[in-house]
Amino acid sequence: MNTHAMWKDYPQLEKDLSRVTQLIDSHIRIRDKQIRATLKEVVHAGGKLLRPAYTLLCSQMGAYYDRDKAIALAAAVETLHMATLVHDDVIDDAATRRGKATLQNTHGNKFAIYAGDYLFSISFAILSKHSGSLEHLAYNSRSMERILIGELDQLHSRFKPASSVKDYLARISGKTAQLFAVSCYTGAIESKATKRQARHAWYMGHYIGMAFQIIDDILDYEADASHVGKPVMADVRQGIYTLPLIYALAKNEREIKPILEKKQLSDEELDRLITLIRQERGLANAKKLASRYTEKALTELNKLPNGPYKDTLFELTSQMLKRTM
Amino acid sequence: MNTHAMWKDYPQLEKDLSRVTQLIDSHIRIRDKQIRATLKEVVHAGGKLLRPAYTLLCSQMGAYYDRDKAIALAAAVETLHMATLVHDDVIDDAATRRGKATLQNTHGNKFAIYAGDYLFSISFAILSKHSGSLEHLAYNSRSMERILIGELDQLHSRFKPASSVKDYLARISGKTAQLFAVSCYTGAIESKATKRQARHAWYMGHYIGMAFQIIDDILDYEADASHVGKPVMADVRQGIYTLPLIYALAKNEREIKPILEKKQLSDEELDRLITLIRQERGLANAKKLASRYTEKALTELNKLPNGPYKDTLFELTSQMLKRTM
Repeated sequence: MNTHAMWKDYPQLEKDLSRVTQLIDSHIRIRDKQIRATLKEVVHAGGKLLRPAYTLLCSQMGAYYDRDKAIALAAAVETLHMATLVHDDVIDDAATRRGKATLQNTHGNKFAIYAGDYLFSISFAILSKHSGSLEHLAYNSRSMERILIGELDQLHSRFKPASSVKDYLARISGKTAQLFAVSCYTGAIESKATKRQARHAWYMGHYIGMAFQIIDDILDYEADASHVGKPVMADVRQGIYTLPLIYALAKNEREIKPILEKKQLSDEELDRLITLIRQERGLANAKKLASRYTEKALTELNKLPNGPYKDTLFELTSQMLKRTM
Repeated sequence: MNTHAMWKDYPQLEKDLSRVTQLIDSHIRIRDKQIRATLKEVVHAGGKLLRPAYTLLCSQMGAYYDRDKAIALAAAVETLHMATLVHDDVIDDAATRRGKATLQNTHGNKFAIYAGDYLFSISFAILSKHSGSLEHLAYNSRSMERILIGELDQLHSRFKPASSVKDYLARISGKTAQLFAVSCYTGAIESKATKRQARHAWYMGHYIGMAFQIIDDILDYEADASHVGKPVMADVRQGIYTLPLIYALAKNEREIKPILEKKQLSDEELDRLITLIRQERGLANAKKLASRYTEKALTELNKLPNGPYKDTLFELTSQMLKRTM
């Protein structure tokens, strides 16, 4: 099984991530050949496996490093992520993901809904089989709740121009940062890191997730090579207001609001919008905030016990969060 | 909080079921008032609470009866059931459930998908907080998987006239019987019943679920008072072949198959179909099989240790499964 090219300089991690994918694959136990094959395609669709990588690395923090257990926890994290992606694609009516047709595109919404549910149940099955304690498991369920509260909230706030920076941050905290935080925390606590260390791992993951999502939201407004240099602007088309727009809106509501009040935006209106966002420094200020979160993440990282895993964490995080800087 | 009228002769059970609903309610922790209110409506929509009733009763089987724990386990079971209903309504494009507008009808598919996911996560959160062991939890996750395999399978086999009795039974075993089995088993094993007793509880629940679903499928073909005596026949309209049709089809494929090959059935064709199903004794034979499962359920019930809970289990099961007999 091939893992993403980004891991080629980390042979050990690459090997473990390949085992993560294999483990998830082995949990797809459906008699019907066609359904099984379809779900296995989702598993092997070639995501970057960032979240499980953080779990694997943080599993080397504590006194008790059990490789098989670390791989299982990482698999639970990734399966949970996959489940939310499958449902996100239904919600967003997405035709492709990672360059491949989405489940809902090829098999319909109905199939994709149950398929996502099935992946959720596998995530919990792996977790309850390999987690060291009910307490950790309860913590993970609670995190899962928070992630879904974030999703519900985002859905609910579509086409609501009142979005504030505070609301935006609360939303991405639930939607993205929560899962990064859990990925790190789970690895740490299950490897018997101290509570204090696990808390630093949690915050590190949280800040990484915040920076990651802000950068992702910035990229949606930046030129995209595959679209002849045009920004994708998928979010605003769907009525999702992300940080660059929220910043710009706060400075120039007079000119921006009337554009947003139209539910369908023409190419000219999108061009006008991006010009206004740039002019009001919406992108520049969003980048600044992403950098602040990255710094916070690295500060937490520094507090973790030393070891080779820590160097890799540092490299990975710097590399990932400097995509736009 | 009002529970269904069917519990009025069981004041203790009624009180505990009311606490089950309250406990689920207390887990709906969403800041947004409107979303919170919507989800709470789902919780209080007035289902019969059959599955949690079985959990509560079976929790009195073993040596260790802890009322608060029994209520929590019952709440996890019911929340899981609610989550599947919310997603089923999206899948079936259902406008109403229990006489009330469905979530997907009032708030759209997108909201309903995440709301269902949120309920799943609450179910696991309650379970991991109150379950006595990781082993039980792993068992519950595995059950959840089987339920979803049943759903995926049913979806996949729509409009496939090849459905055999065996396939039908496998499907309802996953879709319905699994959750009844888990409801009974969880109560038994967590109250420290012996493994043998818990196994009997599992089989009792399984057979109850099988009979329950067959009866439900029969009722879809029986006259419905609210529709001026016309059967609803919602299943066949959606391409779902249930037992009465499968039995009839096996006896008279020549006349029935051509009707089913049309994807949209007119009222005349539906009338013709029901006549053929009656004529080929599809309903009568389905009732016979339901009775056989009911008997099997009562045989397993008889093997359980004596106690007042057992008498209630017997009354409840006989009453519920004799709806059509």
